[in-house]
Amino acid sequence: MAEESTDLAERFAALEARLRQLEDQQEIARLIAGYGPLVDSGSAEAVADRWEPDGVYDVDEWSMSGRAEIVAMVTSAKHQGWIEGGCAHFLGPAHVTVEGDEAVAVGHSLMVVHSDGKFVVRRATANRWQLRRGPGGWRVTRRTSRVLDGREESPRLLAALDLGAMEAE
Amino acid sequence: MAEESTDLAERFAALEARLRQLEDQQEIARLIAGYGPLVDSGSAEAVADRWEPDGVYDVDEWSMSGRAEIVAMVTSAKHQGWIEGGCAHFLGPAHVTVEGDEAVAVGHSLMVVHSDGKFVVRRATANRWQLRRGPGGWRVTRRTSRVLDGREESPRLLAALDLGAMEAE
Amino acid sequence: MAEESTDLAERFAALEARLRQLEDQQEIARLIAGYGPLVDSGSAEAVADRWEPDGVYDVDEWSMSGRAEIVAMVTSAKHQGWIEGGCAHFLGPAHVTVEGDEAVAVGHSLMVVHSDGKFVVRRATANRWQLRRGPGGWRVTRRTSRVLDGREESPRLLAALDLGAMEAE
Repeated sequence: MAEESTDLAERFAALEARLRQLEDQQEIARLIAGYGPLVDSGSAEAVADRWEPDGVYDVDEWSMSGRAEIVAMVTSAKHQGWIEGGCAHFLGPAHVTVEGDEAVAVGHSLMVVHSDGKFVVRRATANRWQLRRGPGGWRVTRRTSRVLDGREESPRLLAALDLGAMEAE
Repeated sequence: MAEESTDLAERFAALEARLRQLEDQQEIARLIAGYGPLVDSGSAEAVADRWEPDGVYDVDEWSMSGRAEIVAMVTSAKHQGWIEGGCAHFLGPAHVTVEGDEAVAVGHSLMVVHSDGKFVVRRATANRWQLRRGPGGWRVTRRTSRVLDGREESPRLLAALDLGAMEAE
Repeated sequence: MAEESTDLAERFAALEARLRQLEDQQEIARLIAGYGPLVDSGSAEAVADRWEPDGVYDVDEWSMSGRAEIVAMVTSAKHQGWIEGGCAHFLGPAHVTVEGDEAVAVGHSLMVVHSDGKFVVRRATANRWQLRRGPGGWRVTRRTSRVLDGREESPRLLAALDLGAMEAE
């Protein structure tokens, strides 16, 4: 019996580790899936809370450091103008890689805006999210976003699926 | 041994609860991921079967109550015309929240249509799905969809990630 | 005690089977989520490695058989031109069905290209992925993609959510 229990305990630990891996993947996917709805509804605090307190959101049009600057972006006249006119920050499913308490997620987004009664794709963007697990769950430490207009940085972000891929440059 | 077994039984129950939570998230994401392919292929019964028998599909262009009205929408001349011309109801990954046997999923969709040899975004839409677990699995009780053209209802849908968020208004 | 252990062993096996099902779904979703970022960054070998060595990528514009032909597509002047101009192969979340070591995933994709300082949807596409589990994990045996421009094949792909649905024709 004692042997059987040890065997079960080991199988248990293995199962828990696999479950944790799935939960991490799912929690990160969910964090990213909430970004678009929250930013398009002007939910400034909820957007910023997805980042670490000193997290960075580095987008070619606007670079932000810390939650207060992210809140300022969402509440800005420019962003509020997008919402008032009609706007979708449409993010695709990201490719997520978790290693312990660090993770990287890579994916595309489209910004679709309503203009003169029509909808136009204002930008297609490459996104690379770096995340860290803390006491309150996963948070973004850095999101780097570059428009896919031919600039070389954008495909480079998309190629960097692995942790450490950008840091190694 | 008895104590150890009790301990294992408790860990087992905890593991099963976490697994159930992941399965719920995944089943709901899969239900939503099937909507676009089924509606764009005119699979009317399979679309309607995603709703409860008395489920509601409330879209600004067309409000439906019960599966027969959803089937009627898919088989309508208008919808068949979209399919014949070429059409993609492109849904992004939704933000899913499960509480027991109730759930809410929020996300964007794009309707892309083929027209004069080109593809245009006909609408970008805010979607909020309310779901219930029944004997046959998760079904939609209400899907509310509003075009993101500046009307105030649409961002409100996107802000309502939590269960009860709309009901509280 | 012996009875209790047997009971636990059975519950264990059931839990492991459910976990495996979730892992399969997640691994396939992740494989597909990596396609867009890799193809838009010209990561030719990594794209091809998602297919079986003799896997098929059958798209109306270009039919490929085996990894070498997929690498050739990514490294071609035509595809490199898309990357240099700015391009997003934007895939939505697929509807995944797993049966043992076989799977099918169905979903939409958009090809968004940068042109004259604007972004246009060049094509909306129906995709059906057939996959097989091998020693190195899940790989694509066939991806069939057809543009949603009104041709009848495209909705047929989207209707074929089940394994064997196309083979039965």
